[in-house]
Amino acid sequence: MKEVKIALFGCGNIGTGVYKLIRNNCIKIMDAEGVSIVIKKILVRDLSKKRYADIDESLFTNKIEDILLDKEIDIVAEFIGGESPAKEYILKALNHKKTVVTANKEVIAKHFEALQEAARQNEVGLYYEASVGGGMPIIRAIHQSLQANRIQSVMGIINGTTNYILSKMAEEGREFEDVLSEAKELGYAEPDPTADIEGYDARYKLSILATLCFNKRVQINNILCEGITKITSVDIQYARELGYGVKLLAIAKDTQNSIEVRVHPTFIPINHPLYAVRDAFNAVYIKGDSVGELMFYGRGAGDMPTGSAIVSDIITASTNKHHYVKLVATPDEEIFEDNWLTEYYIRLSVFDKPGVLSKIAGIFAKYNVSITSVLQKARGDVTAPLIFVTHEAHEKAVLSAINEIKKCEYVNSVENLIRVEK
Amino acid sequence: MKEVKIALFGCGNIGTGVYKLIRNNCIKIMDAEGVSIVIKKILVRDLSKKRYADIDESLFTNKIEDILLDKEIDIVAEFIGGESPAKEYILKALNHKKTVVTANKEVIAKHFEALQEAARQNEVGLYYEASVGGGMPIIRAIHQSLQANRIQSVMGIINGTTNYILSKMAEEGREFEDVLSEAKELGYAEPDPTADIEGYDARYKLSILATLCFNKRVQINNILCEGITKITSVDIQYARELGYGVKLLAIAKDTQNSIEVRVHPTFIPINHPLYAVRDAFNAVYIKGDSVGELMFYGRGAGDMPTGSAIVSDIITASTNKHHYVKLVATPDEEIFEDNWLTEYYIRLSVFDKPGVLSKIAGIFAKYNVSITSVLQKARGDVTAPLIFVTHEAHEKAVLSAINEIKKCEYVNSVENLIRVEK
Repeated sequence: MKEVKIALFGCGNIGTGVYKLIRNNCIKIMDAEGVSIVIKKILVRDLSKKRYADIDESLFTNKIEDILLDKEIDIVAEFIGGESPAKEYILKALNHKKTVVTANKEVIAKHFEALQEAARQNEVGLYYEASVGGGMPIIRAIHQSLQANRIQSVMGIINGTTNYILSKMAEEGREFEDVLSEAKELGYAEPDPTADIEGYDARYKLSILATLCFNKRVQINNILCEGITKITSVDIQYARELGYGVKLLAIAKDTQNSIEVRVHPTFIPINHPLYAVRDAFNAVYIKGDSVGELMFYGRGAGDMPTGSAIVSDIITASTNKHHYVKLVATPDEEIFEDNWLTEYYIRLSVFDKPGVLSKIAGIFAKYNVSITSVLQKARGDVTAPLIFVTHEAHEKAVLSAINEIKKCEYVNSVENLIRVEK
Repeated sequence: MKEVKIALFGCGNIGTGVYKLIRNNCIKIMDAEGVSIVIKKILVRDLSKKRYADIDESLFTNKIEDILLDKEIDIVAEFIGGESPAKEYILKALNHKKTVVTANKEVIAKHFEALQEAARQNEVGLYYEASVGGGMPIIRAIHQSLQANRIQSVMGIINGTTNYILSKMAEEGREFEDVLSEAKELGYAEPDPTADIEGYDARYKLSILATLCFNKRVQINNILCEGITKITSVDIQYARELGYGVKLLAIAKDTQNSIEVRVHPTFIPINHPLYAVRDAFNAVYIKGDSVGELMFYGRGAGDMPTGSAIVSDIITASTNKHHYVKLVATPDEEIFEDNWLTEYYIRLSVFDKPGVLSKIAGIFAKYNVSITSVLQKARGDVTAPLIFVTHEAHEKAVLSAINEIKKCEYVNSVENLIRVEK
């Protein structure tokens, strides 16, 4: 029986969950994997804070050196979260020849090369299954199950908070601010929800997924990022009439000649597998050239799903003879396409005069943007909603057309602009 | 660079697919995995048969000894299919110290212990990711990603042909025989479709999944198996009215004290993630005690998705220092529960007389089966359809009630009986 000693960096909800999972499953893990995992030390900032009562108090330390200099400790699992000091602690651990397991999407997304290089130089492992999609084994699938594929695209619902909000808006006909307030009260949204609702959290995760799927470094500043704050119940209602749902999607496509990476609210058809992903669930939909379409679905957050992924990484790291370190090329900036082809939903408020449809259709035609559907809705006193869905068109052509439409005398305002994926 | 020499048993569609995938991805595999995979020999029955033109003819042999006795060959990938001679060939390969990669669900399901034991004794590996769910990495996920979970249940759509047929019936309002004929013409169903439509194929796969998920040997004869031949467009129509879809589900549940395993047509609610699995797609929905709900979705068959899983297994087998061999306990027969709790949809044809509903409701009550919904449909000349959905009740109580209902003077016939899962 091999005994592997590990340390935890942090002991909040996830750290406590990991502690419980290792304790509760230790016999099963020994039987199946032939390894006994022993938690030797736990780094915390405040030694006086009350912790989960079952944890032996002698495990706690507030000095990282107690762990770094302990030669018996092979693996460190980090759950501090955020960029700093987590990044420095992870680097220190790698440089002290400890394998690192982390759920820290921000640190992995921002410092991928530095961390992988440190792992390689120190001949230790770096595992981060829990950084994307909670308990869904998406990272391991990309590494270990799709090697015979060129991955062509990834589309994911990888932020649970925004999916919860959009699901509630759709199912209960409520507005964004209303659902967000409730989500904060229920603990589904953070007191400061910016990272979720503006798409930053999804952008970190997409940076990691795209980098691994395409074997090319995709930085967060390569990724277009739009949040869900401008989505209204009216848009969701029109989406349904047109046969779509609205999701915050993280999208990455690699044509070999160009890469497009973007996080934004998106219309998807009701028969798409991602449409059925409701509440706080996550899903990642991948297309590979041999496997075809593949989707992973599960709880993208929460102590226990995240803990499940972390403990799986710890076991894998404990039993692996050889750690897999991913070194990817940094592509030229030019490979990142920003004038992608996409369909668009466009909602206008127009003045209710004869000739308005012909005028606006003329502007779209001028920019070579052709139209799939038009919805003309019941007029108000002076203005009326007018909704277009375009055929596939270049992003910049659509934006130029919209710019001209904004200035058109028939148009009161451009109310919303949402991309469509199929 | 490590060079690994392999042999193929069989060179039909899947074998040819694997040949192409290895050839097309060899550079990528070498770069990422540090291993060069070389196909040294291919076993075929008929040397004179015309094969894929790119394969060097000198690779072919019709003598298994050429492969068994070749000490350079470390890995054999089998795609002969069916039970015999595939089982004997796999055992011979293991006994000649070759690691085996196979997609053969029938052989794995029927001979799990013998094959695992042979692998263990010979210190070689046995890999069968492609045996369930085509390119979906479900086997590896169970082995390598869910170790910190007690898996409580598995529900899968694991036969593409029947899902295709049921999807077409639902979407086009057509009858079973009609869609089946078309599926045969299009090549989606075999000329003899028995194994698919009677649920035998799904039963093999469920035997493998349940054995791995529960760490207890589940034999195919432990599994209740009902096919889809009795499903009519009328049942699908009523399902929709009641808020359900009809799928052939493979279901396994482990309460620790009892195991229930069954393959049968099932009503599932329209908001269940499995409901959205259409056409020939497969999906496996797992509940684990820490990870929660998890679903894998993808193409369950086809040369290239299956080839993707096989090549992934070959690479894993080539790079693994230690092969993971699953030895599971054989539980007492008594642990297999056949009087499970389930809800039921029951469609009767009744004679259109006063008092019929009260009479039948009385019989259900007598057997402690309570009713959730009743649909009374427009009468025919003499008979009328009467549909019940029950609350959760014991299987045997429902069947006893049905037995009495059959004999009731008001009842023309019991038209169908379909279980409901949530």
